[in-house]
Amino acid sequence: MHIDLNSDLGESYGAWRMGDDAAMLDVVSSANVACGFHAGDPAGILATVRAAAERGVVVGAHVAYPDLAGFGRRDMDIASADLRAAVIYQIGALQGIAAAAGTRVRYVKPHGALYNFIAHDERQAQDVIAAVRAVDPSLVLVVLAGSPLTDWARAAGLATVAEAFADRGYQPDGSLVPRSQPGAVLHDPDAVAERMLQLVRTRTVQAADGSAVRIQADSICVHGDSPGAVAMAQRLRERLQAADISIRAFAGSAAESAKA
Amino acid sequence: MHIDLNSDLGESYGAWRMGDDAAMLDVVSSANVACGFHAGDPAGILATVRAAAERGVVVGAHVAYPDLAGFGRRDMDIASADLRAAVIYQIGALQGIAAAAGTRVRYVKPHGALYNFIAHDERQAQDVIAAVRAVDPSLVLVVLAGSPLTDWARAAGLATVAEAFADRGYQPDGSLVPRSQPGAVLHDPDAVAERMLQLVRTRTVQAADGSAVRIQADSICVHGDSPGAVAMAQRLRERLQAADISIRAFAGSAAESAKA
Amino acid sequence: MHIDLNSDLGESYGAWRMGDDAAMLDVVSSANVACGFHAGDPAGILATVRAAAERGVVVGAHVAYPDLAGFGRRDMDIASADLRAAVIYQIGALQGIAAAAGTRVRYVKPHGALYNFIAHDERQAQDVIAAVRAVDPSLVLVVLAGSPLTDWARAAGLATVAEAFADRGYQPDGSLVPRSQPGAVLHDPDAVAERMLQLVRTRTVQAADGSAVRIQADSICVHGDSPGAVAMAQRLRERLQAADISIRAFAGSAAESAKA
Amino acid sequence: MHIDLNSDLGESYGAWRMGDDAAMLDVVSSANVACGFHAGDPAGILATVRAAAERGVVVGAHVAYPDLAGFGRRDMDIASADLRAAVIYQIGALQGIAAAAGTRVRYVKPHGALYNFIAHDERQAQDVIAAVRAVDPSLVLVVLAGSPLTDWARAAGLATVAEAFADRGYQPDGSLVPRSQPGAVLHDPDAVAERMLQLVRTRTVQAADGSAVRIQADSICVHGDSPGAVAMAQRLRERLQAADISIRAFAGSAAESAKA
Repeated sequence: MHIDLNSDLGESYGAWRMGDDAAMLDVVSSANVACGFHAGDPAGILATVRAAAERGVVVGAHVAYPDLAGFGRRDMDIASADLRAAVIYQIGALQGIAAAAGTRVRYVKPHGALYNFIAHDERQAQDVIAAVRAVDPSLVLVVLAGSPLTDWARAAGLATVAEAFADRGYQPDGSLVPRSQPGAVLHDPDAVAERMLQLVRTRTVQAADGSAVRIQADSICVHGDSPGAVAMAQRLRERLQAADISIRAFAGSAAESAKA
Repeated sequence: MHIDLNSDLGESYGAWRMGDDAAMLDVVSSANVACGFHAGDPAGILATVRAAAERGVVVGAHVAYPDLAGFGRRDMDIASADLRAAVIYQIGALQGIAAAAGTRVRYVKPHGALYNFIAHDERQAQDVIAAVRAVDPSLVLVVLAGSPLTDWARAAGLATVAEAFADRGYQPDGSLVPRSQPGAVLHDPDAVAERMLQLVRTRTVQAADGSAVRIQADSICVHGDSPGAVAMAQRLRERLQAADISIRAFAGSAAESAKA
Repeated sequence: MHIDLNSDLGESYGAWRMGDDAAMLDVVSSANVACGFHAGDPAGILATVRAAAERGVVVGAHVAYPDLAGFGRRDMDIASADLRAAVIYQIGALQGIAAAAGTRVRYVKPHGALYNFIAHDERQAQDVIAAVRAVDPSLVLVVLAGSPLTDWARAAGLATVAEAFADRGYQPDGSLVPRSQPGAVLHDPDAVAERMLQLVRTRTVQAADGSAVRIQADSICVHGDSPGAVAMAQRLRERLQAADISIRAFAGSAAESAKA
Repeated sequence: MHIDLNSDLGESYGAWRMGDDAAMLDVVSSANVACGFHAGDPAGILATVRAAAERGVVVGAHVAYPDLAGFGRRDMDIASADLRAAVIYQIGALQGIAAAAGTRVRYVKPHGALYNFIAHDERQAQDVIAAVRAVDPSLVLVVLAGSPLTDWARAAGLATVAEAFADRGYQPDGSLVPRSQPGAVLHDPDAVAERMLQLVRTRTVQAADGSAVRIQADSICVHGDSPGAVAMAQRLRERLQAADISIRAFAGSAAESAKA
């Protein structure tokens, strides 16, 4: 058995640091690298992509709304022409960085408000799908498990990978517990590790009401924006490996994905 | 006989227009397309690259310092790591846009203050050279005719194309008349056309003191930032074609460069 | 009788020009000056404010969402703390510019998407109201005639001035004809002038269905973003003055508002 | 005896944190607050200014080149009209924020590359001086002790305060040891505290060669960008107070400066 672990990286900007990319690159098999629109300056992005390439971690484009001040977390009513071109531009920029680092961009994961919005908004979803296809139709799109986006992307001929969130609570219908409610975010590293082990083995997680909810996910998103988050990710990786589950990228060459 | 005509395009930004890209794409064989750092938003860049592709105009990356407010015209003491990554990022972004438009980026032309500075500053010049090579060593670098940059680029294995400026006066040593001096900028379209015809035929232009100065250039830069500039560029194209000189891109496929 | 004419100015940015501020400052009594968030760089803003001060045109802060690429025309789900501080920051910046130009900021007019959104959204409206009051409670807020914002602002103790749009069609209920419908934008300068003359004299305009709709407005917004728009604004000013209606600012000192 | 302690604050931006403003506001008497051009978003700036006002810490405008990506640390060949207006705009923006927080901007301290450049470059120095005077001629300019800028500012009628750097080595001529040389930065909190105690008492510090160099400074700059830096600043404050030296702002009302 195997599973992919992905995390958001390359999110420093200029003089400002965010996260511990080096530590997280030792944990994950896929790196969602910021492309400069919500975070990431060229030199920082290049350093992170080089570090990913050295470790055989697969690189994906973490595309976002053009909103540095809001870290891409604010809903934005952006026109289709602007959204499509913005996604194309960001993927291209990361492809250039990846070429310089001796690797390639294998997938695309929308960030923040864009991620949440296109999970259910078809207009912006189709813009992102069209943009990815226009640059390189072999790119994989990472989607929220169970979201309508999955079907729209597949109907357009785009490969998708569904992801689960290691530290988030789920509702009986498979959606995430909203951050405004208790149980939205989980804090116990051991409990999180056991929970994700169950996810990989049984394709279910325990929902907030105790029921088992089916989550079809081929990747698990882990965070690294605090020392506690890094430790939780490390614990998860150890637990999975102890249970003979390989950490393996869902995309990329055999060489790149042989990380276990 | 043949020559390339190049011009700076894609320089609108958001609600602000600059230049008449459609008119200029009917004049030139090579389009230096802004990459978002001194000018150009993704949707505008994409529209310009699509229009270039439709006309068989070859696309180059017009890379610049990160300075939207200053239009890339201000000298900037940028660290090597930042300059290299910024150039890589911009080329990549335009490559993504070009892929979506069904064409490719064939060359790189530095813009504004970066163009002038690396013509003689070896540190920043080597940064730009390294960046171009890191993304794609087959990209051609457009350089100021007679500048030291030419030798640095060639020594690093990069193909170069030297350019002359249609509307600028030259000094006896082959350098441009500084803008602060009389004769720096030429305004008579007919005189400019005759002057460039002489350049193509004899590889000389008449300097400010009346002497003939040798300018080894395979491309001529024309401007389109005013109706008068567009008319001057159109006049130049007509005059060259009337003298049986083809307007032909220096880079790209035979199909792309067959524009005469 | 008298009326105020206002227009959006200072909207150039760096190398990009927009509008003809000099021409419009000879037409209007109030200048809505961009504050750098949707348009306007410091040097351009300062030049426009100086030109306004020389002509006795009253200066207002044209505050916007932080969205240069979208010209402040995109809806943005911005947090209250961010919106309040952004409005405070922009007013303060223009106050500094005004002090350097020997004048003062007398009013605030929200721009673009922010203007339209807070006309009916109470949360963001209250944020803007609180911000204006925090900087200077004597500032006047320019509002869409008949909008709920008017009541919210007055309840908070803020003076308001309602405005009509010279070149827009109105519906029988006093709202603007949506841009997607016929009759949304008027193009005949003479018809627009007569229409606004009626507005000043009778406080009514003819709605799209021919009925007379009551519009209580103390200012008329005119545009200057094209030669045709400037000419329409000039025609309106001439027509009003020919009918012995003074063009007079709603805010500012007697000296500043004596422009007729 | 008394001395001012100043520190750079408000330097977070959007999702990115920098420094521990709360801790430093308990140490210093003057806060150099970022104005959004090298760092600082409106909401973060407002929070820092409010916290300063609550503690009676005097607020100054930390004005910078427009260079968020470079944190204002890169030399920039900016035109006079742009530099002047940029400084005016930043001071005004912070004045607006200060008004909303119930306090006032009392002084201006240039940041980073601008600070270093205008210490000896007269053209840009005169631009900054003219800008400060245009907004409010009663603002105090913080300058590098012994720099030519001091004389230019005083000749223009601007009050100045010279500052020393707690953690930097000095050369026998009173200039700072360049960062490229050994002894440029001091790391021992106790040694730094004793050194600054000597500065206040004798107006001399021990230079790198052991000689006593005269430094006429009325403010000491301390840093807070790391836990170690905060601890060093706290140690300095304690040492000075133990020696009966008050920590007192150089500017502002009696109420504001009574912090000891």
